[in-house]
Amino acid sequence: MSKPRVAIIGAGFGGLTAARALANAPVEVTIVDEANHHLFQPLLYQVATGALSPAEIARPIRAILARQANCEVVLGKVTAVDTQQRKIEFHDGGLRNDSLPYDYLIVAAGARHSYFGHEEWERLAPGLKTLQDALEIRRRILMAFEKADRETDAAAKAAALTFVVVGGGPTGVELAGAIGEIARHLVSPGFRNISPSEIRVLLVENAPRILLSFPEDLAQAACESLRRIGVEVLTGSLVTGIEPGRVLMGDRAIPALTVLWAAGVVASPLAKSLGGPLDRAGRVMVNKDLTIPGQPNVFVIGDLACFTHQTGHPLPGVAPVAMQMGVHAAHNIVRACDGQALKDFHYLDKGNLATIGRAAAVADLGKIKLSGLVAWIAWLAIHIFFLIGFRNRLVAIFTWAWTYVTYDRAAMLIVGSDPSSAPPS
Amino acid sequence: MSKPRVAIIGAGFGGLTAARALANAPVEVTIVDEANHHLFQPLLYQVATGALSPAEIARPIRAILARQANCEVVLGKVTAVDTQQRKIEFHDGGLRNDSLPYDYLIVAAGARHSYFGHEEWERLAPGLKTLQDALEIRRRILMAFEKADRETDAAAKAAALTFVVVGGGPTGVELAGAIGEIARHLVSPGFRNISPSEIRVLLVENAPRILLSFPEDLAQAACESLRRIGVEVLTGSLVTGIEPGRVLMGDRAIPALTVLWAAGVVASPLAKSLGGPLDRAGRVMVNKDLTIPGQPNVFVIGDLACFTHQTGHPLPGVAPVAMQMGVHAAHNIVRACDGQALKDFHYLDKGNLATIGRAAAVADLGKIKLSGLVAWIAWLAIHIFFLIGFRNRLVAIFTWAWTYVTYDRAAMLIVGSDPSSAPPS
Repeated sequence: MSKPRVAIIGAGFGGLTAARALANAPVEVTIVDEANHHLFQPLLYQVATGALSPAEIARPIRAILARQANCEVVLGKVTAVDTQQRKIEFHDGGLRNDSLPYDYLIVAAGARHSYFGHEEWERLAPGLKTLQDALEIRRRILMAFEKADRETDAAAKAAALTFVVVGGGPTGVELAGAIGEIARHLVSPGFRNISPSEIRVLLVENAPRILLSFPEDLAQAACESLRRIGVEVLTGSLVTGIEPGRVLMGDRAIPALTVLWAAGVVASPLAKSLGGPLDRAGRVMVNKDLTIPGQPNVFVIGDLACFTHQTGHPLPGVAPVAMQMGVHAAHNIVRACDGQALKDFHYLDKGNLATIGRAAAVADLGKIKLSGLVAWIAWLAIHIFFLIGFRNRLVAIFTWAWTYVTYDRAAMLIVGSDPSSAPPS
Repeated sequence: MSKPRVAIIGAGFGGLTAARALANAPVEVTIVDEANHHLFQPLLYQVATGALSPAEIARPIRAILARQANCEVVLGKVTAVDTQQRKIEFHDGGLRNDSLPYDYLIVAAGARHSYFGHEEWERLAPGLKTLQDALEIRRRILMAFEKADRETDAAAKAAALTFVVVGGGPTGVELAGAIGEIARHLVSPGFRNISPSEIRVLLVENAPRILLSFPEDLAQAACESLRRIGVEVLTGSLVTGIEPGRVLMGDRAIPALTVLWAAGVVASPLAKSLGGPLDRAGRVMVNKDLTIPGQPNVFVIGDLACFTHQTGHPLPGVAPVAMQMGVHAAHNIVRACDGQALKDFHYLDKGNLATIGRAAAVADLGKIKLSGLVAWIAWLAIHIFFLIGFRNRLVAIFTWAWTYVTYDRAAMLIVGSDPSSAPPS
């Protein structure tokens, strides 16, 4: 008798953890992802701001799973799930349509940016989800400095040196903090015609305060840290329009060449093809055992899942939730294979961290709340610990230490060009 | 009285060395390059084959020259030189047209691939000159393995696993050697459906032997090293056509999905606008003092210059030639500022090196000829020594040691997509 086939869609924190948790199970696993690498997303903003290189925060999925004999890796973009026929449809690395049958399915396809119905803003204000996004954001930031360095018109120069980050969650705070650091330390030696004081970094948040997922005192500490490194925090400010060269907030227009989006995410459109009920953000309402209603062999985990059973609120879209769900779904599949009943999922909250620039962070570890340098060191230690691959850990430690001491960001390279603008002839 | 203005076109080995040699001269220097980084080209094939990351072999030009008070850096693509008006025309980082007057000019714009009149081959067989080229070649190599892993048709699988490198100079030898290494060590754990023995790497050279710039016995040693790691060397073979999926050599057609071009270079088209005589490869025939006929304030150096005065043959397009020329042109400008006569250039040949895969190389150091492991260690030491930036040297040493011991190529990431093919709907 052949072993049950488990298909996993997505090799992010959730999918990859599930695959590893099935290493010794009597099943055949196939993991499908549209990228060839697993990405350590919490450090993606470091690639966007030129402190780290892509290879330092990503690792080929095949390399991670090379020694797991029961797991096959497929490069492909899943387009639909057919729960009737129990198969997934995808197009593969050669860009041909293909399908894969399954006995059990784990959907960990994640989320992407939401522009709240203004998809036309995406081109003007890119978000940060993939390595490609990070390199595009890096290119825009560096090209803005290059443009400002040669700009003779004062208003155009001011717009080139204004960076607006929309969204005051952890990603927005980290991104704004990192750009603030660049402004203070990197620009002065390299660009002769730019003074650090000319650079404006704005963090715009619709809610009354930033870091809504953190306690208020920590959010306040983060806000002060941001202001110390020159980031202007605009809370209670709704972005009503993004146009080339400016951001609109009601009657107010801020001229800015570089606008970055960290305001919201929406679940992968794959959620719809599963056929179950979705929440407002398009996430799949999962059962207590992480299956979906009517499909006891289909599990949905990570950012794609809306799990409200524990607190009444959905669990946040962070790596620890996805990883714990991945292990739980894997164990439930093993139970199902044995004919045992599935168990309910319980999330163990170990805390919440966000970093602000070079030596400041906030940490909410339940009873313990940290801010400043101590929180930053905790942030560094935890992130290095969870970086996949021993080599990556060594290189990241070295790179951080180097950057910390010398302010030298090695990866400040512009590779690629803006496809939308051709040079004048 | 204002200081003389020196414009330098290109921040490769020649231009950058010239800029640094003018650090203490009573001149104002402006260096213009279309990339924001200086690239250590001898290691570019390592980026293409996933062993190194872009940031490990490149450094922002602004960072390199940050402490040189008399030098300004401009990101721009030079489109023409107007020797009458003594100015260069370029479009800048904001993609606007601009111009820059000069008193002295150093043209170090380098060379690019030549397809010998078959420019339509470029799309099918990319060459290796920029970081972007390297990332595109990496993407093609990795996508070929991905395609082969899921291919059920035997002929199509064989074509996906055939890699043809056209051109048996040092770049072609290094590229073929590195792909041979990948075939043997990287593929087996990661790709379940590919056996290393199915992979073919062909090095095609029109001349009767490879490495024409090296002595015959060293070329023979290189050839044997290549064969040992499974690279088929086809000498005396002229490529007569490149079509999607195959390479033609006379009547013979080799089905191959991945074709890489290392066969020839042609000088930057900027050479034409200088108005002097050019050689067959489009290089500028320079005077003994590196100026061009009739323009005693215009110097041409590096791959763009055809300097035949010493041996009757043009000096080769390698980094040591460009760097020595850069220093010489800088010193001649200082002499001219002082009203002294210009001196003639003499190239001091320190040797010639090429590497083949993991632990083999050939070195022609005049009286001493090395091959095998000793030459490889010499190659490694010299390349690390000349890598710009102390951090880069440390990281490169670490990465090599790591790769050598573990066969783990960290940078095997596919970033970016093939713009010419859209997924099927």
